[in-house]
Amino acid sequence: MAAPTTAPTTGSMQSDEDRYFSTNPPPKDLGQHMALVEAFIDKHAKANRRVVLVTSGGTTVPLEKQTVRFIDNFSAGTRGATSAEYFLDDKADYAVIFLHRQFSLQPYSRHYSHATHSFLDFLTEDDNGHGVRSRDEDAASMLSVWRRYRAAGDRLLALPFVTITDYLFELRAISRLMHRLGPNGLLSPKAPRSKSLVIDLDPVPKFLKSLVDNWSPESMMISFKLETDPDLLIGKAKGALERYQHHLVIGNILATRKQEVVFVTPRDVNWVRLSEADVASNVEIETLIVPQVISLHEEHIRTHKAREKTQ
Amino acid sequence: MAAPTTAPTTGSMQSDEDRYFSTNPPPKDLGQHMALVEAFIDKHAKANRRVVLVTSGGTTVPLEKQTVRFIDNFSAGTRGATSAEYFLDDKADYAVIFLHRQFSLQPYSRHYSHATHSFLDFLTEDDNGHGVRSRDEDAASMLSVWRRYRAAGDRLLALPFVTITDYLFELRAISRLMHRLGPNGLLSPKAPRSKSLVIDLDPVPKFLKSLVDNWSPESMMISFKLETDPDLLIGKAKGALERYQHHLVIGNILATRKQEVVFVTPRDVNWVRLSEADVASNVEIETLIVPQVISLHEEHIRTHKAREKTQ
Repeated sequence: MAAPTTAPTTGSMQSDEDRYFSTNPPPKDLGQHMALVEAFIDKHAKANRRVVLVTSGGTTVPLEKQTVRFIDNFSAGTRGATSAEYFLDDKADYAVIFLHRQFSLQPYSRHYSHATHSFLDFLTEDDNGHGVRSRDEDAASMLSVWRRYRAAGDRLLALPFVTITDYLFELRAISRLMHRLGPNGLLSPKAPRSKSLVIDLDPVPKFLKSLVDNWSPESMMISFKLETDPDLLIGKAKGALERYQHHLVIGNILATRKQEVVFVTPRDVNWVRLSEADVASNVEIETLIVPQVISLHEEHIRTHKAREKTQ
Repeated sequence: MAAPTTAPTTGSMQSDEDRYFSTNPPPKDLGQHMALVEAFIDKHAKANRRVVLVTSGGTTVPLEKQTVRFIDNFSAGTRGATSAEYFLDDKADYAVIFLHRQFSLQPYSRHYSHATHSFLDFLTEDDNGHGVRSRDEDAASMLSVWRRYRAAGDRLLALPFVTITDYLFELRAISRLMHRLGPNGLLSPKAPRSKSLVIDLDPVPKFLKSLVDNWSPESMMISFKLETDPDLLIGKAKGALERYQHHLVIGNILATRKQEVVFVTPRDVNWVRLSEADVASNVEIETLIVPQVISLHEEHIRTHKAREKTQ
């Protein structure tokens, strides 16, 4: 095992975390969820498959008595559901734990949900009147989505949460189970937002750093930084990288988040942009983000192995 | 026009309402939504079709700066989406304005969303590999849902909201437009819950009574009362009936809400229950609720017409 590269946890931070988890009730499905996660991780660990935890949908849900925050109504979970698909792609062949806000967008079905149209609009009565089929004009795209959904099969495990406390309990438990994946684990936890905070009676612990330190120290750790002011983005992303000791912060600007993002690592700042032609033909930016993340994850695994050899 | 049967609005209540709507920003889609509602109501008013406003999904959403309330994570919008279908049924032939929390369940597609399974699980590749079709075992039920969805056609107008302020602005504007339907209008607005309130900097006005008094005085007005304690239900339902001067309060107990509800009107208290056989075969309680509501709505229309004649 590699020596941890992060600073040791301070006593007071640890006790904040302990206090948070001991004074808040765990979600009622936690035990059942973790049994699923454990079996999922075991199976894919045996196949030497990489496993990514994708968190999706608004985490800034309010919580009775503890924290008063607001729904991020901007987040339907598009980025999470889209990224999950690209990780599940045959070429990438990751297994995906999709920890999502209840009722947020799901991989694959996202193409036909939360839209102006119901998925029923894409179907028509079949020719013998026994069932329904894809409309001719939608047949090819629905078949493609359906095939990719089926190909993902048991590489996708979707787990819902509602409150921020549910989320943190699930995140902690999943991260700890992912520990056994060593560097094959990839985490991209959402940080609860504090921007819309009005009153905060019992702050959420600074769990992101703790997560790196304690829960799954060999996994690669990514976070996203969403800003509205382009001038602040890089600085804030670098700040987050240092503060949380993550391996990668992906920064984006609200107005342009579907066209460009910036990869901020301890060594580099790299913009990833769709071409104008790609934007015009509705290429999703996740087609660029996920391969770059995978490439950095491969580097993370290599570095970890090299470090193990020298010890 | 019939004389209003409700007490006149007090000055202070009116000013609370005015203040609420003048100090909170309207939802950005309000103008566009109301253009749709106006055309929708006009069309169905010309056809002498009854129009029901069904509100669905959690209204207890938090709102920055104004009100701090909590997500009703219990509400996926099942009852609203289900009721809408029964109102849209050919026999009932209502037009439905479906004012729903963004991403909550929708009529018809609800049968395949928010479930453990994606709608993609009900489809398979078609025989010539050009598209997808319903799996044999799901063909009949999907075809039935699809046909009912298509039959509803332009009798369904779905409008999403996010925050409680969005909801109240939409509700006020729709109610006012429904005024022109006279007694053919049927409203079932959700009351924002105050149960989970932690801090309330700027209380939501007592809008439900105001709505009856001012916004759409000839419509029939229904509300739902959900309780956990059976001993309190009838008393609270009667209290709500009197306080808001609604025509009907439908009470239900959290634990049994899918099997029984109680209709509380100024004259009667009637329990509506599924038989054990119905429960066993998964009959939805809305199959009993909606026809009863429609029957009371017909009585409301008759009473209104009779009253008009005597004036």
